[in-house]
Amino acid sequence: METASRPLDALNAARNKRVILELKNGTQLIGKLYAFDIHVNIVLHEAEERVNGELKRKLNTVFVRGDTIIIISPE
Amino acid sequence: METASRPLDALNAARNKRVILELKNGTQLIGKLYAFDIHVNIVLHEAEERVNGELKRKLNTVFVRGDTIIIISPE
Amino acid sequence: METASRPLDALNAARNKRVILELKNGTQLIGKLYAFDIHVNIVLHEAEERVNGELKRKLNTVFVRGDTIIIISPE
Amino acid sequence: METASRPLDALNAARNKRVILELKNGTQLIGKLYAFDIHVNIVLHEAEERVNGELKRKLNTVFVRGDTIIIISPE
Amino acid sequence: METASRPLDALNAARNKRVILELKNGTQLIGKLYAFDIHVNIVLHEAEERVNGELKRKLNTVFVRGDTIIIISPE
Amino acid sequence: METASRPLDALNAARNKRVILELKNGTQLIGKLYAFDIHVNIVLHEAEERVNGELKRKLNTVFVRGDTIIIISPE
Amino acid sequence: METASRPLDALNAARNKRVILELKNGTQLIGKLYAFDIHVNIVLHEAEERVNGELKRKLNTVFVRGDTIIIISPE
Repeated sequence: METASRPLDALNAARNKRVILELKNGTQLIGKLYAFDIHVNIVLHEAEERVNGELKRKLNTVFVRGDTIIIISPE
Repeated sequence: METASRPLDALNAARNKRVILELKNGTQLIGKLYAFDIHVNIVLHEAEERVNGELKRKLNTVFVRGDTIIIISPE
Repeated sequence: METASRPLDALNAARNKRVILELKNGTQLIGKLYAFDIHVNIVLHEAEERVNGELKRKLNTVFVRGDTIIIISPE
Repeated sequence: METASRPLDALNAARNKRVILELKNGTQLIGKLYAFDIHVNIVLHEAEERVNGELKRKLNTVFVRGDTIIIISPE
Repeated sequence: METASRPLDALNAARNKRVILELKNGTQLIGKLYAFDIHVNIVLHEAEERVNGELKRKLNTVFVRGDTIIIISPE
Repeated sequence: METASRPLDALNAARNKRVILELKNGTQLIGKLYAFDIHVNIVLHEAEERVNGELKRKLNTVFVRGDTIIIISPE
Repeated sequence: METASRPLDALNAARNKRVILELKNGTQLIGKLYAFDIHVNIVLHEAEERVNGELKRKLNTVFVRGDTIIIISPE
């Protein structure tokens, strides 16, 4: 039997992989998951911001405050 | 007499089963409940995102921040 | 003189009875109160979801995140 | 000189008296204050729900989550 | 040199004086500041509720939940 | 090398100076920063309230609840 | 292997560099990151406020309450 895992373990497994973040304001951020903490604050590297699927901006490094995030999913 | 149970026990009973999540923004996520914590942060595997009952996307793994969730129900 | 009682005692008295939950998004959930905790997270069994008084869905078991709840009242 | 009193003392003085609760969604609940806690979760007995001053429902017992309350005032 | 004072000291100085409270929903409450706590929960005595500057109601005693308050100012 | 400073140190440096507060509801408050705490609750003296740049009111002393504040800037 | 880093480490790396802050109300603040804390409260120096990409104001020093921030990105 596998041990019960926790949500932050899943984030840890995604470290250094590309993930999609969806924010409460409708923005998508796609980038390499570099860091996270228990508040679900996130740092992405080599990130792109998309609104309605359209590239809005490239951001080398972006800190995202956890309370603005809805979902995080590996690409 | 049964012992008083707690809400997170009910989530535990649903582990590895398919559940429906309804989010504050109207999105539905359906997938296998893989992990949760006391903040009701959730990780689903083999997930589908539906808006107005219509499949929008498939997501192998998705982390959902607890404060965006309204209800969780086993299918 | 009666001892000063606390709100969660009232929830405890409603355990295994049918209750109505009203949520911030206007949804009503009616079901048997199976579990609750100090965050007012709730699990209902044999539940119905109603919107504008109309049955929308039946849910065997439903976990409701406490911060989405306005009132809880035994039927 | 009187001792500095605290807001929850004022709620305690209203215990078993009829109070008006006004909620963030515009609802009024009027009933006998039966229980409260430090989160300002409230239980009313023999309660009435009013919307725009008009009786909507009678509720024998109602638990109100504190974070939905704006004001509480003895009738 | 004066000692650095804290915001709750300013509320303490206003105790038993008439204050104006402005709430997030646009309501004004004017009354005698009777009690407060660290959450900025407030009890006013001999209070008036005003909407758009117009008297809506008189309230002998009113408990106001701190998280609904924007500003408090002695008259 | 300078020591890493913290945001509340910056507020402390502004004590007794005139600051502009911008609130989530669009209001501006300009006054002398008299007191603050870790919740960013603020007390201003000799304050003015402005809406759309226009003077709305003068307030000798005003307590502002921290969670309504967006920015604070010395004039 | 690199040690797992945390989001606030990324903010620390940006100290004294120019960063863009995007706030929940749509405002952009661009300035030199002078201070931050665990609540993601931020102090910028030599800051500019932009709305829809257009310069609205210059602010020598500005304290930004953490809960109003969506993202922080070095320029």
